[in-house]
Amino acid sequence: MTHRIAVIPGDGIGKEVMPEGLRALDAAAERFGIDLSLEHFDFASCDYYLEHGQMLPDDWFEQLKDVDAIFYGAVGWPETVPDHISLWGSLLQFRRRFDQYVNLRPCRLLPGIKSPLADRRPGDIDFYVVRENTEGEYSSVGGRMFEGTDREVVIQETVMTRTGVDRVLKYAFDLAQTRPRRKLTSATKSNGIAITMPWWDERVKAMGKNYPEVSVDQFHIDILTANFVMHPDWFDVVVASNLFGDILSDLGPACTGTIGVAPSANINPDGIFPSLFEPVHGSAPDIAGRGIANPIGQVWSAAMMLEHLGHQDAGKAIVDAFEAVLAEGDKAVLTPDVSGHGTTETLGRAIAERI
Amino acid sequence: MTHRIAVIPGDGIGKEVMPEGLRALDAAAERFGIDLSLEHFDFASCDYYLEHGQMLPDDWFEQLKDVDAIFYGAVGWPETVPDHISLWGSLLQFRRRFDQYVNLRPCRLLPGIKSPLADRRPGDIDFYVVRENTEGEYSSVGGRMFEGTDREVVIQETVMTRTGVDRVLKYAFDLAQTRPRRKLTSATKSNGIAITMPWWDERVKAMGKNYPEVSVDQFHIDILTANFVMHPDWFDVVVASNLFGDILSDLGPACTGTIGVAPSANINPDGIFPSLFEPVHGSAPDIAGRGIANPIGQVWSAAMMLEHLGHQDAGKAIVDAFEAVLAEGDKAVLTPDVSGHGTTETLGRAIAERI
Ligand SMILES: CC(C)[C@H](C(=O)O)[C@@H](O)C(=O)O
Ligand SMILES: CC(C)[C@H](C(=O)O)[C@@H](O)C(=O)O
Repeated sequence: MTHRIAVIPGDGIGKEVMPEGLRALDAAAERFGIDLSLEHFDFASCDYYLEHGQMLPDDWFEQLKDVDAIFYGAVGWPETVPDHISLWGSLLQFRRRFDQYVNLRPCRLLPGIKSPLADRRPGDIDFYVVRENTEGEYSSVGGRMFEGTDREVVIQETVMTRTGVDRVLKYAFDLAQTRPRRKLTSATKSNGIAITMPWWDERVKAMGKNYPEVSVDQFHIDILTANFVMHPDWFDVVVASNLFGDILSDLGPACTGTIGVAPSANINPDGIFPSLFEPVHGSAPDIAGRGIANPIGQVWSAAMMLEHLGHQDAGKAIVDAFEAVLAEGDKAVLTPDVSGHGTTETLGRAIAERI
Repeated sequence: MTHRIAVIPGDGIGKEVMPEGLRALDAAAERFGIDLSLEHFDFASCDYYLEHGQMLPDDWFEQLKDVDAIFYGAVGWPETVPDHISLWGSLLQFRRRFDQYVNLRPCRLLPGIKSPLADRRPGDIDFYVVRENTEGEYSSVGGRMFEGTDREVVIQETVMTRTGVDRVLKYAFDLAQTRPRRKLTSATKSNGIAITMPWWDERVKAMGKNYPEVSVDQFHIDILTANFVMHPDWFDVVVASNLFGDILSDLGPACTGTIGVAPSANINPDGIFPSLFEPVHGSAPDIAGRGIANPIGQVWSAAMMLEHLGHQDAGKAIVDAFEAVLAEGDKAVLTPDVSGHGTTETLGRAIAERI
């Protein structure tokens, strides 16, 4: 059985970390005898936009809908294309049209990486952010009125649906159920955002009834971000809306030393459409072109993709490999964000060899 | 000239830290010969709600509108009154009706307090969050449809106005102008929240034209929270919407060791209505009743109030006093959140004596 994988490097460091992600993928596929068919696409990038006036070809949905997974780098190049155009024209389309309603983001302090938090060691931080990925605060409803005048008003609607919220809560509870601590934390802001958020709390309560073994707590997003810094060991599975999940899944990895290592899986759990795997970091224009981006976010995303395709052993081999390389701590191999003076490629090659 | 101050302790630890805030206030007033007339109110608390079925008396606006400042503790007791009811019925009313459109929140690593961030010392973290305080994501527009069915949809609108955004930006730029580094950071999320946030960016750009000496940068809220942890020294004045400012002003103080010390000023810069001063922390049901809450958030808020009323020297004396007590590090005096085994009162008394 062949897995068809769409490969989309995107922009900036996306183009630099993708080759290393593929190197790890190839190594794992070879070792475990997995048959992958890679299809490369240049769209969903700002270069493509500059040439074609749109981020995606008209038939992108047709081109991608039958692949088994999408392996994405990073998108965005605000110098030439405003972020809201590049992102709404690509990644956010994929998430919505392919109904990838779960964005799963592990957050783990890895061996060999120094946390910016004092006295935290590997094992102290180990949780998942489960982010709603298709609705909520990321909406296209709203607009401007009285434009350009002193009366100008700008409105944007947050839209949540019972279908949308319940299904991601179910995923998060199911995940919490499989974890040793069986703990779920829900992020809301019911005191301030007093229409949508109290309702989210109600849905959590309702869903929790089906999971008597999972202990549930709830924090307002403001104090929750504070607790990520003060007590990262409290958390096991954190479920959040699109926006709050976005924030927590950058803050969490920052607490583990670098967002350069963090992966994500944009999952369509129903399996009707392809899921998408990408690092949490963006295209990072500030360091792009220098070959120093950490490829582990992309490599770890490859591991999540293989696991999603049913190859748990291959996924684990990739994770074991980069953990071993990090633990070894060879400064000539590691990228600068994890205290090395190596390059994207030296780190990527070391991981692939280890696999 | 007498300053009329409305004193509202509120709920939970609000009632415990308020006496210490008043102790510091009295001490400073005495030392600097300031004439204060304190008026005590029991409303804007959940106890009041349980008795009267509403958080505020009908004539609250009349009762408060002519005081010179409001000194508030904390509000919320979710065990008996849902947070959205207690908050929208009190604090959020004050902010709106008294048009306290700036929420100013200093964030500073103080001597004697250990940051949860590795290797950070006093001086490394020293910035202000300027939060829009009357509109934005905290809106009352929206509702539920198809309630209780699978088709249920819940909508809440974020509403921003040019008047509302420009005036808080102006305040932030003015503040940045007075600071040695003259640096302003704007928090948005223009790639995801693609209607309101790109417009906020435009307003920042437009306002920046009037402040050629202020250097401006912009971060998406997700990576900005990461940078608060990784590079807190980057920031000087951070301006943000109501929700983003709320998040950043809990996360920032967490990076300085405890949100127990963080103060805030809800300011009506036009001076038409009273401004309101309160600690950043909430009523903290988890530690309420034990007399161990840190009173410095309330005490520092008193200092901001005196400065707002024109008594810079008295405000500075209060800040100097709690900094000295913290630096001394007497564990019998300090509260547990700053590694002591003292009480709200021991710490409050030590500060007042020092003043
Ligand atoms: C209690 C709550 C409504 C309030 C807010 O979100 O504004 C608080 O968190 C704050 O920061 O003052
Ligand atoms: C690039 C941006 C639109 C995206 C998001 O906000 O979802 C990114 O930050 C992420 O977390 O995947």
